[in-house]
Amino acid sequence: MRLMQKLPGVGRRTAERYAFDFLLTWKEEELQQLSRLFLETKEQVVSCDQCGALSDQENCHFCSDDRRRKDVICVVASAREVFSIEATGEYRGQYHVLGALLSPLDGRGETALQMHKLTARLQSGEVKELVIALDSTLEGDTTALYLKRELERFQIPVSRLAFGIPVGSSLEYVDGGTLARAFLGRGSF
Amino acid sequence: MRLMQKLPGVGRRTAERYAFDFLLTWKEEELQQLSRLFLETKEQVVSCDQCGALSDQENCHFCSDDRRRKDVICVVASAREVFSIEATGEYRGQYHVLGALLSPLDGRGETALQMHKLTARLQSGEVKELVIALDSTLEGDTTALYLKRELERFQIPVSRLAFGIPVGSSLEYVDGGTLARAFLGRGSF
Repeated sequence: MRLMQKLPGVGRRTAERYAFDFLLTWKEEELQQLSRLFLETKEQVVSCDQCGALSDQENCHFCSDDRRRKDVICVVASAREVFSIEATGEYRGQYHVLGALLSPLDGRGETALQMHKLTARLQSGEVKELVIALDSTLEGDTTALYLKRELERFQIPVSRLAFGIPVGSSLEYVDGGTLARAFLGRGSF
Repeated sequence: MRLMQKLPGVGRRTAERYAFDFLLTWKEEELQQLSRLFLETKEQVVSCDQCGALSDQENCHFCSDDRRRKDVICVVASAREVFSIEATGEYRGQYHVLGALLSPLDGRGETALQMHKLTARLQSGEVKELVIALDSTLEGDTTALYLKRELERFQIPVSRLAFGIPVGSSLEYVDGGTLARAFLGRGSF
């Protein structure tokens, strides 16, 4: 019970439900399947040495796919965002997972970003655009500015995801800061 | 009581509270002030004949202010949005309040937009940019496309507020459609 409460979003009552509605009622076979899943997932899923994205094969799916553009790298904070961006279907380039965002308040400094991994990829001169796809939070903004400054010497155009009105949203529910950015970033229609 | 329940967001219980905590307890003088406010507000606040924005003087504050640019018009759905956009501090041009959005489902067609008022303002050829600041909803998108098509003959550049990630938001909470637009609309950083 106490172990199950460590699962994200699971408190005492949900753990209780898990115990009665699945631990004690599922078939032996199903329980075996699930426990195998727990053991094998972490073994089989590896982080790519180069880009940090998750992969279930030795050669990272993103780095080794020849149909993907090699001259653009999208920088994200965590491997999860790679999946979100893939799901949009708008991007067919390379990724780079930082693994963390700078957070002076939490004492997370530049070593957390492992910049040498990113700079190593830019040495070749093959990359023509770096897309920063980080949160629009204090940590995301700080990290974006840090990246821009640190990578200036490579003279690669750096872009950042657009700020603006969320799709499907009414202006009434948009905060002033977002409305200001949407105004400044307005584009030909 | 029944009349007060017509106020936005006021139900039976709030109306009850209003009755006891203010109607019966406020000083006569305060009640007189409030009732005067009710009577006078609608008398004193007028819609500008030209732009549709609210004003408390004969000459609309926006149309008559010489320090505001005359060559750009921002099209909004309602007078309320004029205030939201003013509050951003990023815009010092003219406004045009449509008063409604097209909504085929609600049977609200083009007559609701009173297009002649807008086209009359574009005849002079003074306007060099039309900024569409409408909701990113079905109604907003439909109206934006309609405006673009109807105003094509004036050959004025039409722009629309940027879509993207709300300021302060984490990528984790952004839906796929918005992320896709943020990607496509990414800008130099």
